[in-house]
Amino acid sequence: MTRTIISSATKEVVMGFDQPFVMIGERINPTGRPKFSAELKAGDYWRVKEDALAQVAAGAQVLDVNAGVPLADEPKILAEIVELVQSLTDVPLCIDSSIIAALEAGLKVYKGKALVNSTTAEEEVLEQVLPLVAKYGAAVVAISNDETGISEDPDERFEVAKRIVEHAADYGIKPEDVVVDPLVMPIGAVTTAGQDVFRLIRRLRDELKVNTTCGASNVSFGLPNRQAINNAFLPMLATAGMTSAILNVTHEGQVAAVKAADVLNGVDPHCANWIKTYRQPPAEGEGRGGRRGSRRRG
Amino acid sequence: MTRTIISSATKEVVMGFDQPFVMIGERINPTGRPKFSAELKAGDYWRVKEDALAQVAAGAQVLDVNAGVPLADEPKILAEIVELVQSLTDVPLCIDSSIIAALEAGLKVYKGKALVNSTTAEEEVLEQVLPLVAKYGAAVVAISNDETGISEDPDERFEVAKRIVEHAADYGIKPEDVVVDPLVMPIGAVTTAGQDVFRLIRRLRDELKVNTTCGASNVSFGLPNRQAINNAFLPMLATAGMTSAILNVTHEGQVAAVKAADVLNGVDPHCANWIKTYRQPPAEGEGRGGRRGSRRRG
Repeated sequence: MTRTIISSATKEVVMGFDQPFVMIGERINPTGRPKFSAELKAGDYWRVKEDALAQVAAGAQVLDVNAGVPLADEPKILAEIVELVQSLTDVPLCIDSSIIAALEAGLKVYKGKALVNSTTAEEEVLEQVLPLVAKYGAAVVAISNDETGISEDPDERFEVAKRIVEHAADYGIKPEDVVVDPLVMPIGAVTTAGQDVFRLIRRLRDELKVNTTCGASNVSFGLPNRQAINNAFLPMLATAGMTSAILNVTHEGQVAAVKAADVLNGVDPHCANWIKTYRQPPAEGEGRGGRRGSRRRG
Repeated sequence: MTRTIISSATKEVVMGFDQPFVMIGERINPTGRPKFSAELKAGDYWRVKEDALAQVAAGAQVLDVNAGVPLADEPKILAEIVELVQSLTDVPLCIDSSIIAALEAGLKVYKGKALVNSTTAEEEVLEQVLPLVAKYGAAVVAISNDETGISEDPDERFEVAKRIVEHAADYGIKPEDVVVDPLVMPIGAVTTAGQDVFRLIRRLRDELKVNTTCGASNVSFGLPNRQAINNAFLPMLATAGMTSAILNVTHEGQVAAVKAADVLNGVDPHCANWIKTYRQPPAEGEGRGGRRGSRRRG
């Protein structure tokens, strides 16, 4: 049974086919957030704090941390916010950058076993990212595209993922420390995007025996009522065998969808986590909380 | 490719692995509704009308019609409400009773090809229901339990379903006119209930090549926040290969979950149905509808 274990100084998170689906909070990322971008560049990290705490409160088991601000000192910022987030929460982090020096700066200050986001199968990328992952004893997200781009054929994407796993082994990185991102295409553009990714996830689980992750919300790009598409997609991904996703946990429906999928996939024994999260407050609390009784989060 | 076609006088609905998931509205059923029960017994059918129209408006492609009122003339009531619903809507019906005379009374007045709900593998039931199904050229829901009850082993439930399909063939009923209900257990009682049913559905699709249906909401029996479990379950069932379900379509989240699953399973080409259902009203409508713009249903 493949288990990817990542950790902070004090807490482990396990990805595996028989484990609850791991929710990686995506919010600490300045892409498309100009105010956040400007603040990071100015060394003002209040929003990082807010996003970190809100995501953990909402149920994130891992936080992605990205400091991709154009023309800023990304290695310095990434290292600083990694330290900041680790001082505020005990969840493991996913250190996210396309700049090698930033990944290294983040890994250098990180306490625990990080998830590095990410490498592709492009030679130039592999040869810079994999040695870092090996040096710091991290795990790595492997995105299944190469120099030729992203294949529309899921079987080709499988082969690309396999190549990354093999290259990782050359650097002493075990297959269980490679978490494959099969790449989710927008379903509005590619009608088979869902079927393709379900099939690819099954092959990655059954043949390559690796854990998987993705940016799930990409699937609904350009469509109305995106939230409902995303909420359905996560349980479908989990049924196909996906073991984690990078998502916006502050969307309540997303977290409920993932926790429900855990129940239905039999990885929330006796529905204990579900019941803890969603049971109604006890009757004696009604006097304080009002008759309608807000839901208690466990 | 297995296709189960049912029809009213003027409209066909097709179940199939490459077809949109068929939503069968469950509301016209007095079980657990004492007022409705009393009204049916008194020949007052206003609630049948209301439920029929509301369910079709909400997206039901088929309506289940059940008149199971204790100590009432069920054959007479079922025939009357079948005629009533057919006079109000053009969707095909699922004629639902455990009383053979009621099934026959309903079938006798039905216009089109009905879905009969249901037979089990119990000899006594099979030998009464299958001749009726054959006589009226209907399709039938086959529930995978027999004299020994409901097996907890999905492979045994597969064998029971196979036996019903074989018996049906003896009466000249084709396999595509048998829609198997693999039986969904409450996940709060049986932790593997989800995994069991997903595996069973895959076998029913791949080996027996039959369409499938179920009462999906049973899975969440006894749990808090049932709606969220049900909303996740439907897309998971669809991914596993289930082709229809009997459900409460007046729960908005259920319909969205099913339609999203259609998009993600590639059976809503170009997302045409999704976009028609959920697109925002055009800008010029804002003056009437308010700035927030309520969603238009297609």
